[in-house]
Amino acid sequence: MNDTFLRVCAGEKTDYRPVWLMRQAGRYLPEYQKVRAKVDFLTLCKTPELAAEVTIQPVDILKVDAAILFSDILVPIEPMGMQLEFSELKGPVFHNPIRTESAIGNLRRIKPYEDVPYVLETIRLLKQSLKVPLIGFSGAPFTLATYMIEGGSSRNFIHTKRMMYQAPALFASLMTMVSDVVIDYLKAQIAAGVDAVQIFDSWVGALSPHDFDIFALPLVQRIIRELRTCQRTVPIIYFAFNSSGMLDRVKSAGADVYGLDWRIDMADAVDHLDRNHVVQGNFDPCALFGTRDSIYTEVKRIIEGGRYAPGHIFNLGHGILPETPVESAQAMVNAVHEISSKPF
Amino acid sequence: MNDTFLRVCAGEKTDYRPVWLMRQAGRYLPEYQKVRAKVDFLTLCKTPELAAEVTIQPVDILKVDAAILFSDILVPIEPMGMQLEFSELKGPVFHNPIRTESAIGNLRRIKPYEDVPYVLETIRLLKQSLKVPLIGFSGAPFTLATYMIEGGSSRNFIHTKRMMYQAPALFASLMTMVSDVVIDYLKAQIAAGVDAVQIFDSWVGALSPHDFDIFALPLVQRIIRELRTCQRTVPIIYFAFNSSGMLDRVKSAGADVYGLDWRIDMADAVDHLDRNHVVQGNFDPCALFGTRDSIYTEVKRIIEGGRYAPGHIFNLGHGILPETPVESAQAMVNAVHEISSKPF
Repeated sequence: MNDTFLRVCAGEKTDYRPVWLMRQAGRYLPEYQKVRAKVDFLTLCKTPELAAEVTIQPVDILKVDAAILFSDILVPIEPMGMQLEFSELKGPVFHNPIRTESAIGNLRRIKPYEDVPYVLETIRLLKQSLKVPLIGFSGAPFTLATYMIEGGSSRNFIHTKRMMYQAPALFASLMTMVSDVVIDYLKAQIAAGVDAVQIFDSWVGALSPHDFDIFALPLVQRIIRELRTCQRTVPIIYFAFNSSGMLDRVKSAGADVYGLDWRIDMADAVDHLDRNHVVQGNFDPCALFGTRDSIYTEVKRIIEGGRYAPGHIFNLGHGILPETPVESAQAMVNAVHEISSKPF
Repeated sequence: MNDTFLRVCAGEKTDYRPVWLMRQAGRYLPEYQKVRAKVDFLTLCKTPELAAEVTIQPVDILKVDAAILFSDILVPIEPMGMQLEFSELKGPVFHNPIRTESAIGNLRRIKPYEDVPYVLETIRLLKQSLKVPLIGFSGAPFTLATYMIEGGSSRNFIHTKRMMYQAPALFASLMTMVSDVVIDYLKAQIAAGVDAVQIFDSWVGALSPHDFDIFALPLVQRIIRELRTCQRTVPIIYFAFNSSGMLDRVKSAGADVYGLDWRIDMADAVDHLDRNHVVQGNFDPCALFGTRDSIYTEVKRIIEGGRYAPGHIFNLGHGILPETPVESAQAMVNAVHEISSKPF
């Protein structure tokens, strides 16, 4: 197995920087669209053979150094008692948003082996054939809670913050419940064989640093502490999107690797993390709409910016966009491997 | 006139911190909705008596220390040759997005006195009756260019960034043209009597710091330099939304005051600005969905965080949301005045 990704997670020196792309199994790939044309999105997540197939696709097509389980962060939330639908127009929708004590009381803690067996089966299938490490994942509690409270995606998170400020104990009880699910879910993924896990906090950037400290960070810390008690431990990546102004707080999550979006200069981010944490990301997904030359130049700039980190896993700063040309993603991966394997 | 706002802009000590709210003349006010029910949004912007009326409303209702001209950042862009519509569903829409050299060639530099006379007339009307300083404003070039290129609001700014990376000279020519318009427009507002101007860079946070340096910042610097040459000069506020990770670059814009969103701790922001720049903002608009107590506590926290700045104009970190209870906005303004007038 190509273990470059895992060695960088562990802070080891490697011959080149590993690279993968968030949402690398996705709509920009014709091969994915072909599979997806046969089934709806949730069915794809719940069918191990198909989920495994699309997980592997980008490894072959892009030559990335890691695969990420094809699934969705809301998959373990649905069996808590949430009515989930993926709408082409609106994205994920929960038809029963959770805004009261009784609604929270009706939620149940899932049992991963009974409630999401297809996820674990997908992992087992993938581990039989993958030649690169497999990354499992979960949403972080705040991000998952926003979907549950808002009933889907949101622009301003008014319902979530109203609960936070007006009923902090109620909000905390929901967050604790979601954290329990995240812990159980990630432990099950680790037991099933994933080689690393990433915790996606896609909406935590909606919080002020002060609110992050109070309402979100302690739950992430708890999850990471719990995962460290597993019989088998794996590297943990925490990706707090749009939190460039509070990296000094994010870094206390206790993760092995911290994800970065593109809103901060790589060298600055490495300094904010005391040159002491492995980083991942930093390439603007929209830079893939540039030319081959502009992509190469941007890859080089970011690689140079990361030189003082104990390790850098190259990645986008957010998911790859459906409109992205495949050749541009390939050009980026090639540029990472080429540039980072030479002295600079 | 209550000149507390202007004195803080100039770095002077005052008895309390001045406060105003972005979008304070807006949909959360029943008094505004009453006026708005009579005319569509663009007509409201273009009718001096009505625009002046809604500009004054929050001064009386909230007791804020400054008024901001009621208008929209796209008002001076329409007469460049853009077909503008405000759609209830989609927000602002330009029916002829600008993506080619010939489309840019067809744009014209506006003459404010001929093309947007109603804006200048609104300012003259307001100056006759206002008891607080009047803030004029403009969008910043990058933000305005995104609307022109995308044809409206956008999530990922793909068209804008594609032009930036694939045709940087073309993008630069558009940005220069928009900057010329911004300069003429703000100079006309200043000549008409505004007491300060704010440059809104609402979407510049979509850029990496590196791209901000190349594609956006130089134009903002040029605008501010030009405004300094006016016979009458006024304080200039630059608000680069969602740029907490690159304040060290933002601060070189040359403004008198820098706007802050809520994604950075106030004390950190003041330090990033070398404790040398007057700041504005930092209160999460969603914190107005809290209780009277939680609002008071948050105001106090932010006021204390700003103690080492040479001045702090209290404000939200983004526009007030339409769903906001008026009493909460009033409670915030009262809290700012009360807390900041006592030693702390």
